[in-house]
Amino acid sequence: SLCGLGAAAPGAWGFPGEPSPCQAPLQWEGRQVLYLQSSGRYSRALISYDGLNQRIRVLDERKALIPCKRLFEYILLYKDKVMFQIEQATKQCSKITLLNPWDPLDIPQNSTFEDQYSIGGPQEQIMVQEWSNRKSARSYETWIGIYTVKDCYPVQETFTRNYSVMLSSRFFDIQLGIKDPSVFTPPSTCQTAQPERMSEDCPL
Amino acid sequence: SLCGLGAAAPGAWGFPGEPSPCQAPLQWEGRQVLYLQSSGRYSRALISYDGLNQRIRVLDERKALIPCKRLFEYILLYKDKVMFQIEQATKQCSKITLLNPWDPLDIPQNSTFEDQYSIGGPQEQIMVQEWSNRKSARSYETWIGIYTVKDCYPVQETFTRNYSVMLSSRFFDIQLGIKDPSVFTPPSTCQTAQPERMSEDCPL
Repeated sequence: SLCGLGAAAPGAWGFPGEPSPCQAPLQWEGRQVLYLQSSGRYSRALISYDGLNQRIRVLDERKALIPCKRLFEYILLYKDKVMFQIEQATKQCSKITLLNPWDPLDIPQNSTFEDQYSIGGPQEQIMVQEWSNRKSARSYETWIGIYTVKDCYPVQETFTRNYSVMLSSRFFDIQLGIKDPSVFTPPSTCQTAQPERMSEDCPL
Repeated sequence: SLCGLGAAAPGAWGFPGEPSPCQAPLQWEGRQVLYLQSSGRYSRALISYDGLNQRIRVLDERKALIPCKRLFEYILLYKDKVMFQIEQATKQCSKITLLNPWDPLDIPQNSTFEDQYSIGGPQEQIMVQEWSNRKSARSYETWIGIYTVKDCYPVQETFTRNYSVMLSSRFFDIQLGIKDPSVFTPPSTCQTAQPERMSEDCPL
């Protein structure tokens, strides 16, 4: 079989010249829709991203379309290797050790350029670039990031395993800067936090 | 449990006034990334959409990241209730009856407005609206369409079942009109087409 031999070389996507990764903003706030393959579901949240201090705050947004779902706030402090999970209704708090190292929402310098295209249409569009962590034409990627070309705003991040999408996050309503840095301070209920992660499903 | 009672009313998403669905373009060409939950995989294709004549042509794009995949061309003629599947390399052709009725890529007039937001960031953004076929705050949708606000270009269509994403398609590089209508004419190999759908997996 000739399958696999015809794989296009990197950069052969009709875009002249190999661009280099742009520098994504270090501090911003916006919204995200997160899709998890394990559940097949998506969830909406407000997000505050502070790359300077390696911390992220995620606040679940109620969506009318999912009638039964506990809403949480998540405060991830990577310098302290800790995540606080706070139930919005009760302020019940869990404190969980972060095992993964800080992974900024940006395009690493050694990334592979995959594609450039416009979203929208004539007179109403943004240009974005797709980047991945693919190392050659024969291997495949486990991360794809889509960022705007000019100001490098995040549009989508996708993590895959064995070609399969594990997790995908779309970002929108992005504003630069952190309006209120106190969103990264856990509430007082977190002083006596439990160590177990709370389930996102409703108690029946 | 109070879960489910707090579901927000439709239109309570902080957007003043209930917009009405825009009219998506009837003929356009572009590209798509299609995600199928059953396989966990995504595929890329060129797409020619002809809503006037109820026909769609999809041409698989080679992606370096998936080393072993047969590439097809699909010509869907809904007025004739028939789909041609043509292997790009061999022109081998299958002719398959279309069981589903024509479902245009647009926002049906009775759709529910879900959300409006910007993709990108300050000075580099497009405004889009999310619409669904949800009928009340207590039920849930099986279709979500994301279209630009001004010219109603398709950005994303998602089909769900029991809250789970079954199929999601992102659209980009959209150009209005059909450059070459002959793309909807099947090749001569389709005159002796086989009735079975060809598998997308590589023969080992």
